[in-house]
Amino acid sequence: MLKPIPDLRIVGRSRKPEGTIVHVGDVEVGGRKVVVIAGPCSVENADQLGTTARAVQAAGAVILRGGAFKPRTSPYSFRGLKEEGLRLLEEVGRQTHLPVVTEAMDTRHLDAVRAHADMIQIGSRNMQNYTLLEEAGKLDVPILLKRGLSATIEEFLFAAEYIASGGNEQIILCERGIRTFETATRNTLDLSAVPILKKLSHLPVIVDPSHGTGIWWLVPLMARAAIAVGADGLLVEVHPDPEHALSDGDQSLRPDRFAAMMADLEAVARAVGREI
Amino acid sequence: MLKPIPDLRIVGRSRKPEGTIVHVGDVEVGGRKVVVIAGPCSVENADQLGTTARAVQAAGAVILRGGAFKPRTSPYSFRGLKEEGLRLLEEVGRQTHLPVVTEAMDTRHLDAVRAHADMIQIGSRNMQNYTLLEEAGKLDVPILLKRGLSATIEEFLFAAEYIASGGNEQIILCERGIRTFETATRNTLDLSAVPILKKLSHLPVIVDPSHGTGIWWLVPLMARAAIAVGADGLLVEVHPDPEHALSDGDQSLRPDRFAAMMADLEAVARAVGREI
Amino acid sequence: MLKPIPDLRIVGRSRKPEGTIVHVGDVEVGGRKVVVIAGPCSVENADQLGTTARAVQAAGAVILRGGAFKPRTSPYSFRGLKEEGLRLLEEVGRQTHLPVVTEAMDTRHLDAVRAHADMIQIGSRNMQNYTLLEEAGKLDVPILLKRGLSATIEEFLFAAEYIASGGNEQIILCERGIRTFETATRNTLDLSAVPILKKLSHLPVIVDPSHGTGIWWLVPLMARAAIAVGADGLLVEVHPDPEHALSDGDQSLRPDRFAAMMADLEAVARAVGREI
Amino acid sequence: MLKPIPDLRIVGRSRKPEGTIVHVGDVEVGGRKVVVIAGPCSVENADQLGTTARAVQAAGAVILRGGAFKPRTSPYSFRGLKEEGLRLLEEVGRQTHLPVVTEAMDTRHLDAVRAHADMIQIGSRNMQNYTLLEEAGKLDVPILLKRGLSATIEEFLFAAEYIASGGNEQIILCERGIRTFETATRNTLDLSAVPILKKLSHLPVIVDPSHGTGIWWLVPLMARAAIAVGADGLLVEVHPDPEHALSDGDQSLRPDRFAAMMADLEAVARAVGREI
Repeated sequence: MLKPIPDLRIVGRSRKPEGTIVHVGDVEVGGRKVVVIAGPCSVENADQLGTTARAVQAAGAVILRGGAFKPRTSPYSFRGLKEEGLRLLEEVGRQTHLPVVTEAMDTRHLDAVRAHADMIQIGSRNMQNYTLLEEAGKLDVPILLKRGLSATIEEFLFAAEYIASGGNEQIILCERGIRTFETATRNTLDLSAVPILKKLSHLPVIVDPSHGTGIWWLVPLMARAAIAVGADGLLVEVHPDPEHALSDGDQSLRPDRFAAMMADLEAVARAVGREI
Repeated sequence: MLKPIPDLRIVGRSRKPEGTIVHVGDVEVGGRKVVVIAGPCSVENADQLGTTARAVQAAGAVILRGGAFKPRTSPYSFRGLKEEGLRLLEEVGRQTHLPVVTEAMDTRHLDAVRAHADMIQIGSRNMQNYTLLEEAGKLDVPILLKRGLSATIEEFLFAAEYIASGGNEQIILCERGIRTFETATRNTLDLSAVPILKKLSHLPVIVDPSHGTGIWWLVPLMARAAIAVGADGLLVEVHPDPEHALSDGDQSLRPDRFAAMMADLEAVARAVGREI
Repeated sequence: MLKPIPDLRIVGRSRKPEGTIVHVGDVEVGGRKVVVIAGPCSVENADQLGTTARAVQAAGAVILRGGAFKPRTSPYSFRGLKEEGLRLLEEVGRQTHLPVVTEAMDTRHLDAVRAHADMIQIGSRNMQNYTLLEEAGKLDVPILLKRGLSATIEEFLFAAEYIASGGNEQIILCERGIRTFETATRNTLDLSAVPILKKLSHLPVIVDPSHGTGIWWLVPLMARAAIAVGADGLLVEVHPDPEHALSDGDQSLRPDRFAAMMADLEAVARAVGREI
Repeated sequence: MLKPIPDLRIVGRSRKPEGTIVHVGDVEVGGRKVVVIAGPCSVENADQLGTTARAVQAAGAVILRGGAFKPRTSPYSFRGLKEEGLRLLEEVGRQTHLPVVTEAMDTRHLDAVRAHADMIQIGSRNMQNYTLLEEAGKLDVPILLKRGLSATIEEFLFAAEYIASGGNEQIILCERGIRTFETATRNTLDLSAVPILKKLSHLPVIVDPSHGTGIWWLVPLMARAAIAVGADGLLVEVHPDPEHALSDGDQSLRPDRFAAMMADLEAVARAVGREI
């Protein structure tokens, strides 16, 4: 039924049964502590990013996220502040001492993103952009690899193998919902993927309940479930004013709700032998 | 994004904001206590059923499940002991004082199933068998309604509305995995459906991690997640000898593993303000 | 990749390599001639049914369809004229000398449907209603079996095997679209299923482009494609006034458009060595 | 149900109701003539490519396809001859006077591919690689854009809009199957997408029955259906020795079977008012 995949030569669990710890700045992902990465979908301006960063940090987030290069379905949607967004991220990261993660959409962005960020995200739409995966494999910076919208677990792991085969084994896998017939949610968050990924691979696995549901009030509940099922971390969208967000407002938590969620998650983490 | 569905005249949340408690024998489903329903996929013989029933009861299960009429893809597979299975269920239920639930596949089975069981299950393949739903709506026995393999949440709730419109509001909804492109699991367990169903409807919602994954070692993990996300109960397949089960052995827990799971779930339930 | 399925003991192709001809009244399905079944989604009244029947007959349809028992998502939608609908169908069938097909949703309907109709349809939502399949297998009337909304080709063929294992081998398979993530169409018509079904089984295969798309103007185009790929027939919804239809108006053709489609299909049928 | 999409400012049908003709070398795509593009999945060596090119040309293909950069699920699979493959393609194209199309997987490949090929393919896995789309939009070479594995029709059209918004309107859309629950075929070829794409956009639409099914003997049948439904062309994999192909042998036609298919398709094209 669920057999080991022999061609996962590097990321397969048997090569490193004890599991991998990925270091993002001085944060360890894959250990006993559940790691929360939070921030706005898009970096919009210094004030929005700074406010959000300080709020999520106060509530317990240890890595800051924010999109500078934004993949959007329509070319006429807001597509990110690009280099200016990277600069803001780095600045706010330095002020708060939070490591930052942001997406690179193309091989040509890798150097710029790496210059400003502590971890590079490869997004769902690029999970099978094999050239990008290969180039990311040549870097010495951790990679946050998100599952493709309709990628099987096997394809997802092979995407990680592409990166690893270039020499970079600092990879975090992120389940973020798959595309199904159900339209009540933006995607269907596949939480069973978490223990399966951890069984087949030694890499840490985190969950993105924001994209996984598309609905802000589901985020704290699915975050609970993600921790209960064994996720090593969460990736959560937070915005000081979701109704006026330039992207993904429907799925973004206000800072006060994020703080309430964090308080709530502690008990669940303890119940499964983790801390947060 | 997620709007109330006005035509859910009876099962819609607004009609009963405080939620419904369903009574199965003297067990209450939908209250603070998370209810665990367990037993074999198929009733095979008196010994198998009795052994399983006593084991799951000792571990904390409060309702016994077991299939007498079995929907199977091939007509040449084992299709259940039928009336003999119903008789065994009733007998073991009486011995253990556990209420029993079993599936009716057709309107003509309803009387027989009702005569022997405390709750009638309508399975995934019959979720849109509207004649069966209507007839179930005329009974005064609780109904366990499982989500169809590719039913949207809206279609699922309308199936409950069919039952309710006949006068029977003692309905428990059961999320049991949906059909997606992913083949690592038998189905994709859609845990986000649980809070959505509870928001749109006042009916209790339970989760079947056995069918939802098809893989026994995932069951305790997805059971944790189900409780974390707010499920009112679990439906779990247990078999004394899964390798020789006549159906669904791959997804059945051995009694010792079921007991270990139950012990483990207490902490998660407490963490979210429930007990088990 | 596509292996014979040994447990298809009766409907498997190897048992009858020359293929099966199903007789509906005096119409043969499965021969050189492509058979068109047409009529309204629901029987609404004598006038609507009679008008439609005469129009589709004039355009070349050879079997009349019409729903008397209608499976509807909501219990508050129009659910068919039931026995009165059956009576109207029989009457109009007699007047026009067209054999009629209509759906039975439950084992208890089988006798009534059989008394009035020349072929019994088992709908998508009941494709795995195994009790209904078994009872249909005991009758000596042809069965039109529609593929379930998310049934694999293998499950579809096993549903036919259920019927056949009861002794009734007069079965027509109908591809009618599957549920996918795409929302532009009501379903995704899986035309590759047609040659696969014909390779694995000796039963005739027809296509329902009305449910398969949900969009009236796509029907003639997908009907062309169905014939090109080898379908033995079509099932098409026609209504004299689609905008006021009590069900499925969006996917129903007006009689004049149906006639235009029929004229158009002749050339395609000839191009692939068939006639219509 | 199917509304125009206002933000398709450039590729939307209303902007060019008469439709677009794309010029690939001296071949016109989008006119009355159905255009067949054929060749091996991967360019393997001069002999394999030359043999295939001459065979498909003799049978009526007018554009040569062949992969030099190959996106493969595993990094350990054959991934193409890369620059050497491009060189071979150009050489064989010159010998046969066939324009050639091949895939670019990354912005950095665009110049090299453009130097050797007459049309650049953007593959399914890169359909939402927006940086690649943008760069392709700055070129003056036609683009063959394949639908993503789980892209909606709307997302597919917006990917074309990305290219067009850069100034390049020489775009051919290619339906190549979508990912569904069905496992009998590699993908589910969504032929209803063809007329919908043509209604919403003025761009030519072709169909790839090789990837769309993954099964060689289905290719001629689905090719028939594609022409019947209105496709402007076909993209077909042909290999002189499919059993020893370095990629996708299961779905490749032998040259003799390709020739038989081409002969067969003429009648279907004529039946729908086209030629081939």
